[in-house]
Amino acid sequence: MPTFTPADQDFEERVRDSFARLTLMRTIGARLVKVAPGEVDIDMPVRDDLTQQHGYVAAAVVTAIVDTACGYAAMSLMPAGADVLTVEYKVNFMSPARGERLLAHGRVVKPGRALTVCAGEVYALGDAAPKAVATMLGTMAAVQDTAKVPEARA
Amino acid sequence: MPTFTPADQDFEERVRDSFARLTLMRTIGARLVKVAPGEVDIDMPVRDDLTQQHGYVAAAVVTAIVDTACGYAAMSLMPAGADVLTVEYKVNFMSPARGERLLAHGRVVKPGRALTVCAGEVYALGDAAPKAVATMLGTMAAVQDTAKVPEARA
Amino acid sequence: MPTFTPADQDFEERVRDSFARLTLMRTIGARLVKVAPGEVDIDMPVRDDLTQQHGYVAAAVVTAIVDTACGYAAMSLMPAGADVLTVEYKVNFMSPARGERLLAHGRVVKPGRALTVCAGEVYALGDAAPKAVATMLGTMAAVQDTAKVPEARA
Amino acid sequence: MPTFTPADQDFEERVRDSFARLTLMRTIGARLVKVAPGEVDIDMPVRDDLTQQHGYVAAAVVTAIVDTACGYAAMSLMPAGADVLTVEYKVNFMSPARGERLLAHGRVVKPGRALTVCAGEVYALGDAAPKAVATMLGTMAAVQDTAKVPEARA
Repeated sequence: MPTFTPADQDFEERVRDSFARLTLMRTIGARLVKVAPGEVDIDMPVRDDLTQQHGYVAAAVVTAIVDTACGYAAMSLMPAGADVLTVEYKVNFMSPARGERLLAHGRVVKPGRALTVCAGEVYALGDAAPKAVATMLGTMAAVQDTAKVPEARA
Repeated sequence: MPTFTPADQDFEERVRDSFARLTLMRTIGARLVKVAPGEVDIDMPVRDDLTQQHGYVAAAVVTAIVDTACGYAAMSLMPAGADVLTVEYKVNFMSPARGERLLAHGRVVKPGRALTVCAGEVYALGDAAPKAVATMLGTMAAVQDTAKVPEARA
Repeated sequence: MPTFTPADQDFEERVRDSFARLTLMRTIGARLVKVAPGEVDIDMPVRDDLTQQHGYVAAAVVTAIVDTACGYAAMSLMPAGADVLTVEYKVNFMSPARGERLLAHGRVVKPGRALTVCAGEVYALGDAAPKAVATMLGTMAAVQDTAKVPEARA
Repeated sequence: MPTFTPADQDFEERVRDSFARLTLMRTIGARLVKVAPGEVDIDMPVRDDLTQQHGYVAAAVVTAIVDTACGYAAMSLMPAGADVLTVEYKVNFMSPARGERLLAHGRVVKPGRALTVCAGEVYALGDAAPKAVATMLGTMAAVQDTAKVPEARA
């Protein structure tokens, strides 16, 4: 894996501040457990109110944590003042999301001034060995002036 | 758009029964508003606890409703007894998800015995004209024996 | 489908000039058959040297024509001087690509200053009714200064 | 990376036989340089007749080699008699594909009886250090009876 040098030494504080404003992460009980240059881990307990029809954590919740991990992995390499938006993602679901907790790992594959390519995985944790639940490949955009976001996402 | 003939005349009841067991949909306040052969619409109110850092509905929640609409669009054409699982999806986010409500439309592009290709859109509804928020392209799998799901998703 | 107003009245000439420089399109025998605002069609004969192990046109060749159709659909709405690059795409393959010809249709889903979301389909044409072979969803970028492309794709 | 045990000891011969029937690979000058359980490498020289409008290897050719590497990585873990088809893929393009050669690496992320999730990368090789050109995430299907392929891809 490549090693990245952050453009902003305060990247971790910036990521943590932004995460704290992500209401959905609070709603689903997700926590930021690692913030490194180009790499972010998010952990959440498996909870009954977030499941699909078979009792496993719903695909979209699995997506929520890996998208967030990837987005902040991208943001960790962006200059001060830059915010991050998800342009698009693709997720493959590989095993049922069950167990005690889910761990999402997001990492930067290719940083860029405007667009950053990220990849991520979600693992189910519990009594057994960690099991890969989903894998993601996506594109994140740096937004310099978030006041413009409403009218010009792309 | 192609017209599809359902294999099971009770498709709507089957879809509605399954949707009722989707705990996440209750959690986010989503409702099934249309079930037709190969086409499903889901509606949800915009709610503060489902937002990201700019106050818009989070990408994963947008994904949740369009994935569910697509999954049930696929299921509406499957034989009785078949359940549906999301193999993978790709979503592009085009505009901020804000307004009063979100409407997700899912439709079958290509039905198949094992795999069904689906596409979907999410629109933001409110005072202004409906605005396209996201578009999805994904693959759904028919599962005949859901008891096997835990050990063999794919 | 939305109707688009081109920013540059010479959009068709610009698209045709760029297409003429796409060596791969000549190599595979593809032709530009329609250039409208936000919409482009490309046609190619099925040829034995472009097949995979079952004798159908290879997935990547199918991808080549729908990616090109989508890229030029995006370019048709860009201002004079802008060139287009594919940021990413996702393609689902639905039926074998066989018959006499393939027709790719690319269209803009959401235009943007920097990024344009496009969708496209490929149909197999021959004796039978046209059959959908593949469907694509992708992201195109406008590049203002193509001299910079080598060092900064994204 | 996980280590895989092939179901069929003759996996390499099977992959090489199938590759030899892939006419498109011959057309573009691609060669199979590594076949290991769950991992395949393909190499091709950069050639002028495979370029896009800026003189770089076209996105679809980059896609061709990484799709093929991923497909055969999947096939290397399938039982004797099984053939492989691409269900769908998503590719992000990260840098211009130029230099002397391209190397595609495909690997299995999650094997399955019916569907296998694969990931891959393409690197540009030449005077400078290898540079990542593209990254792919896709789904491959095992086909037991290839005679059925024409009528039932999915």
